Amino acid sequence: MFLERISAPNDIKNIDKKDYDALAAEIRQFLIEKISVSGGHLGSNLGAVELTMALHISLNLPDDKIIWDVGHQSYTHKLLTGRRDGFESLRKYHGMSGFPKRKESDCDAFDTGHSSTSISAGLGLVKARELVGGDNTIVSVIGDGSLTGGMAYEALNNCAKLSSNFIIVLNDNNMSISENVGGVSKYLNNIRTKTGYINLRDNIYYSMLDKPHGNAIIGAVRKTKNVIKSMVVPGMFFEDMGITYLGPVDGHDVDAMVKVLNEAKRVNKAVLVHVITQKGRGYEPAIKHPARFHGAEPFEIETGLPTRKKEKPNYTDIFSTVMFKLGARNEKVVAITAAMSEGTGLKRFKNVYPDRFFDVGIAEQHAVTFAAGLAAGGLIPIVAVYSSFLQRAYDQILHDVCIQNLPVVFAIDRAGLVGSDGETHQGIFDLSYLSCIPGMHIMAPKNKWELSDMLKYAVDSGVPIAIRYPRGTAYDGLKEHRDPIKMGVSETIYEEKDIALLAVGSMVATAVDAREILKEKGYKVSLVNARFVKPIDTDVIDRLAAKHSLIVTMEENVASGGYGEKVIEYVKEKNYSLKVLPIAIPDEYVEHGSVDLLKQEIGIDAASVADRVVAAIKRR
Amino acid sequence: MFLERISAPNDIKNIDKKDYDALAAEIRQFLIEKISVSGGHLGSNLGAVELTMALHISLNLPDDKIIWDVGHQSYTHKLLTGRRDGFESLRKYHGMSGFPKRKESDCDAFDTGHSSTSISAGLGLVKARELVGGDNTIVSVIGDGSLTGGMAYEALNNCAKLSSNFIIVLNDNNMSISENVGGVSKYLNNIRTKTGYINLRDNIYYSMLDKPHGNAIIGAVRKTKNVIKSMVVPGMFFEDMGITYLGPVDGHDVDAMVKVLNEAKRVNKAVLVHVITQKGRGYEPAIKHPARFHGAEPFEIETGLPTRKKEKPNYTDIFSTVMFKLGARNEKVVAITAAMSEGTGLKRFKNVYPDRFFDVGIAEQHAVTFAAGLAAGGLIPIVAVYSSFLQRAYDQILHDVCIQNLPVVFAIDRAGLVGSDGETHQGIFDLSYLSCIPGMHIMAPKNKWELSDMLKYAVDSGVPIAIRYPRGTAYDGLKEHRDPIKMGVSETIYEEKDIALLAVGSMVATAVDAREILKEKGYKVSLVNARFVKPIDTDVIDRLAAKHSLIVTMEENVASGGYGEKVIEYVKEKNYSLKVLPIAIPDEYVEHGSVDLLKQEIGIDAASVADRVVAAIKRR
Repeated sequence: MFLERISAPNDIKNIDKKDYDALAAEIRQFLIEKISVSGGHLGSNLGAVELTMALHISLNLPDDKIIWDVGHQSYTHKLLTGRRDGFESLRKYHGMSGFPKRKESDCDAFDTGHSSTSISAGLGLVKARELVGGDNTIVSVIGDGSLTGGMAYEALNNCAKLSSNFIIVLNDNNMSISENVGGVSKYLNNIRTKTGYINLRDNIYYSMLDKPHGNAIIGAVRKTKNVIKSMVVPGMFFEDMGITYLGPVDGHDVDAMVKVLNEAKRVNKAVLVHVITQKGRGYEPAIKHPARFHGAEPFEIETGLPTRKKEKPNYTDIFSTVMFKLGARNEKVVAITAAMSEGTGLKRFKNVYPDRFFDVGIAEQHAVTFAAGLAAGGLIPIVAVYSSFLQRAYDQILHDVCIQNLPVVFAIDRAGLVGSDGETHQGIFDLSYLSCIPGMHIMAPKNKWELSDMLKYAVDSGVPIAIRYPRGTAYDGLKEHRDPIKMGVSETIYEEKDIALLAVGSMVATAVDAREILKEKGYKVSLVNARFVKPIDTDVIDRLAAKHSLIVTMEENVASGGYGEKVIEYVKEKNYSLKVLPIAIPDEYVEHGSVDLLKQEIGIDAASVADRVVAAIKRR
Repeated sequence: MFLERISAPNDIKNIDKKDYDALAAEIRQFLIEKISVSGGHLGSNLGAVELTMALHISLNLPDDKIIWDVGHQSYTHKLLTGRRDGFESLRKYHGMSGFPKRKESDCDAFDTGHSSTSISAGLGLVKARELVGGDNTIVSVIGDGSLTGGMAYEALNNCAKLSSNFIIVLNDNNMSISENVGGVSKYLNNIRTKTGYINLRDNIYYSMLDKPHGNAIIGAVRKTKNVIKSMVVPGMFFEDMGITYLGPVDGHDVDAMVKVLNEAKRVNKAVLVHVITQKGRGYEPAIKHPARFHGAEPFEIETGLPTRKKEKPNYTDIFSTVMFKLGARNEKVVAITAAMSEGTGLKRFKNVYPDRFFDVGIAEQHAVTFAAGLAAGGLIPIVAVYSSFLQRAYDQILHDVCIQNLPVVFAIDRAGLVGSDGETHQGIFDLSYLSCIPGMHIMAPKNKWELSDMLKYAVDSGVPIAIRYPRGTAYDGLKEHRDPIKMGVSETIYEEKDIALLAVGSMVATAVDAREILKEKGYKVSLVNARFVKPIDTDVIDRLAAKHSLIVTMEENVASGGYGEKVIEYVKEKNYSLKVLPIAIPDEYVEHGSVDLLKQEIGIDAASVADRVVAAIKRR
């Protein structure tokens, strides 16, 4: 057992070359066993086992720095840096993060989570090394999927001027989460399939040098151009940007990678090492179903099937069904995803209306302005995106969609706490960053039927409009409450007196439970489903003010810039004497853990809300 | 006089080929005369005269669509589409915008303002054409500077799959606002300088085809590789991405461009037309001083010198001086700009500390994460950026800087109303989009000395921190008020009773004037300089609550998520009986016009504030 001999950084250097394959197999076994129980990112980690080993053999941690783009492929890195025991608590509250964290280990050089940041961060560390002094090696490991994100290109463009070493490892598995898209992907694929020709290239160079220039045959040339290009210089794309290209190299051959990495260390500029890996390597179900094993639920090892059966549909499922229906009803409806066709539930739409479906790669900026262009061309684009990733397209929402008042619908999934992915993925800012944009409209559904109604409403609205809904099971309570959606109008579920709960989206279900607790304690409690966060329904506040002494606003979003502040501002403006208790996410990053537990910890679950309401009444 | 014969779209088609040069000269004359009076973007427009003519000759507007990246080079386009008279009111309130606006003309296909959006928008229009039907031509015109922005690359990457025509004109002047940066820029430069070799390329192709592969001389090959690459296929970088490359073509030869554009129209995929232009063409001062004539103040035509003399320094000047001093005092201080070394005032720092200065191109995303990397490497990076452009790096601020609590200083210039650039450039959202980010700190200086003090404080703070200051003359009142900066502590300027003005940054000067007006009317007025928007100073509110009946919050930012909402929330939480009047930018886009006029129009100038305060008191 070789894995047991590794309990600290650099321990891997004591393993014999001949045992690398055995160690890799043990690591895979370990990862499959652990993740089958805890859930987590499997496919990307299985693909990066040998690459991580090679890096740890070639480098000297923690002096040398590895920046893992996205970071979900860093499990082997965690294993090789003394965190084997951490896997018992992987992605659990106060346990080991599923991403690199500087606060977790000094071998984690830079926190990641979102895509395409690693080259920028690495270049920063390189420039700091140049200025502060030092001769450590800095390596950014980026997948070919992450290379579809524009900021990776911005960073590559800035590598041209480097005059000291910076290693960029391109971990190329021809996948983002599912299949990859775009011109660069095609180009990389060309390199992969043409590797047999590589030995020819130097001969071709030579043949050009001594040939007199003259007799051209343009037609023949045009036809063969692409073949010639990929023969001449694999990686010319990168060399064009001033980056030395080494590769491609087999990403499951530790020895070969160590050799190339050692060669790369000698280059006094930016050098890209092109490593070909296989996502899910060594575990058949993960190879066959890359999307499912990207971020996997706990599964049965033998079959690869989830151990927990999903009983009720989640909001993504509802979105998927409604999009299918909307596509049939209105041929102007088109759908856009940034490399998340499975995650956002657009796969069915894609299959049925392939011409109206666009996967743009991990490129949220382009996704949103592209949608604006589609809308300017007369279509009704629905951008399906996770809340935390939409942060990437903030300027495009404001500048390209809302200033022109273009009818783009934002279907914002994973809005609110997302759980085990932690800080980087919590979707708890969208109400704030969208509310301050003039011309934007924001809705949040209380249950699965309302998501459907809101999507239909949004498609017909003709304005920029966002619908935000959380991860997880779609609430199926309050079925009988289904008044038509009207712009800026809330829905009163229960009207009593004294206490009024004004809840946004996912918090309506919490409010129903909190209300039950309060009723048991003898309080009178009204309940309003806000429906709209922008514009807010001020009429309902006017009405509530007459016979309530406390309004409780409830939202799964930070307080600053959210729904509660708008209600408080209005109450204050009208000089209503009633008190307002804002329930929201506190002004701090929320770590990983189960959503239910996190809600308790930050005091926004039903019991906590009830307690806080009682305390507010008593304080008065 | 040919220009007089053009008063509607397509009129240019009636001009004889032989008169193109004369027309171009007249357009230049017209632009120089008009902009010398109104101010505006000159260099980019002078460079694009013939290109715009060629587009209007080759295309049929408004059926065909031109999307102007950034859009400040669209003056000739406006001239050729019946807006000659508009130049009398260029960039003035309710006058013609300096950017393309759909609401201004049906020949303006898509609003622009920020960089690198045009290919995404154009691709959206192309896809809409495919789905809705139609055979019009869609052209995105993008500068080589805009090509340093990542979203342009995201869009290019998505052009690979196109199977209908989409023309991308690369208007290549080797400039962004000043000189251009990065690998792609070098690459384009290579094409330009090697154009003499272009005729050779087909011969070289041929020479490769019939040569037997064999005898390699690797050393000789390595040395000549770069030369060979640029000889073989100019535009291979684009062809690698699946985009047909045509060019380079002389961007001041109308006839040549019309021919290439007509050829480009026949390509059934994305085609890039590489046009070489000269920024400032035809006006010597604009060629010599590209940065000054990018966005020019009114100037004397003969000398190119500004007609209005600047009497007092603006905040950018102050920043420039302080950065120079900070650079000397602390060698860990480094500075980053996204293609705005002149605009942000970093030129002096660049000249004195070239190793610690980084111009990353129009690449705000990379700028911020690169800064995070520098900070992780032990340096203190100052990112100097305009408020509206920082929107581009929203996720990077949140995800890469603040989650890791890295000491990056954001020096946010043009925060507040910017005036003549209009909607796309108003810096009126930063307080909102930054306030909701946990771990962020936000300051705004009342006058020029405080900007200096705050910068020094920020550099020593060790946390993510932003300082936002407006365009225009730095306020030099209240010189005697210079208490040391303390985290989250405001500064009380005048302490009286009844009315308390709590003003943020630029609004302190306004508050001084508003207070004078109110004092003349007999009111007692306190004045507090908020200094911090995050964290807000709640102690001062506690103190003011005792002897004031009205707090007036004042900020040059939208209300939602801003300072006022925080104050209201606190006042409500404490159940203080005092009223709060929030003065902020209303929830709408603010068009172009002089800042003073705009402030009056939206009611945030001193007189309006005084009126609103009086009305609020009377209403009570």
